[in-house]
Amino acid sequence: MKRIAIDMDEVIADFNSKMIPIFNTRFNTQISLADLEGVTIQQLRPDIKEQVEAMIGEAGFFADLAVIPHSQRVIKKLTETYEVFITTAAMEFPLSFDAKFRWLAEHFPFISPMNIVFCGNKSILNADYLIDDNARHFEHFSGEGILFSAPHNKQVRGFRRVNNWLEIESMFSL
Amino acid sequence: MKRIAIDMDEVIADFNSKMIPIFNTRFNTQISLADLEGVTIQQLRPDIKEQVEAMIGEAGFFADLAVIPHSQRVIKKLTETYEVFITTAAMEFPLSFDAKFRWLAEHFPFISPMNIVFCGNKSILNADYLIDDNARHFEHFSGEGILFSAPHNKQVRGFRRVNNWLEIESMFSL
Repeated sequence: MKRIAIDMDEVIADFNSKMIPIFNTRFNTQISLADLEGVTIQQLRPDIKEQVEAMIGEAGFFADLAVIPHSQRVIKKLTETYEVFITTAAMEFPLSFDAKFRWLAEHFPFISPMNIVFCGNKSILNADYLIDDNARHFEHFSGEGILFSAPHNKQVRGFRRVNNWLEIESMFSL
Repeated sequence: MKRIAIDMDEVIADFNSKMIPIFNTRFNTQISLADLEGVTIQQLRPDIKEQVEAMIGEAGFFADLAVIPHSQRVIKKLTETYEVFITTAAMEFPLSFDAKFRWLAEHFPFISPMNIVFCGNKSILNADYLIDDNARHFEHFSGEGILFSAPHNKQVRGFRRVNNWLEIESMFSL
């Protein structure tokens, strides 16, 4: 059975829709999704990088993110033919462990907790595919990286790209 | 650079030395390390399995485990020649994430947080060696499993076995 590893933030969990309004309120700014084209929020505002990371790193930040459209249905279908792991780089925000674990239990109850992986360096993953919005994780990954479109990765070339979960559904002929 | 994945509990963190006295106090028993030969605590007392798992699963249980002798020194030497990851099955006890992460930062500060992996099913690991006290993790592991002796695995056969960190030091010719 082939194995698919799937990232969380900006792939199945809608990070930006929560982050942007909180960011604007806290830092009295008016950024929009379009401002994040080609950059992360930390790259957009390096002057307040530490405060931004502290904001994202607060316990519970990840608890109530919206689910990316169609990800639940398509991943459930994937589990019929593939071994599916959720693989998230939670190590950058240690207080996010608990919230991320509970979020997955709530929105993806059909994924066994045994198939959840919190890691930093994703080259440790033994999988055939990795669906991720950060191309840096593909560099030393043993399988094939599939880049999930997000504003920050719009200019990234050299990888198979999908724009949404309907394209993944079609790619894997589900 | 070859890669070594190393488990935490009963390999670098002395789980039993904390668990046994707490267990005896809480359940008014007198078990010793010898009673755990060939069995886990849950297998020894299936009648109170759920209470035992709740006890182990309490937040902070893993925060103050002692370090297994020589593991710090030998692992530090391993990092000079190998890529070392700490790979722990924390998913069975979700409240342990934070305590385990802080324990590693305190006792193994030379291991990057990026090289810490919380997972359940260790077949997801892409490594050349896995040093673990649970042989079940070797079954679908792509590299070589090295069984670290613990009372519960004394009868397990079929894997390269090490009894302590000095033997690992010697095995890897450090």
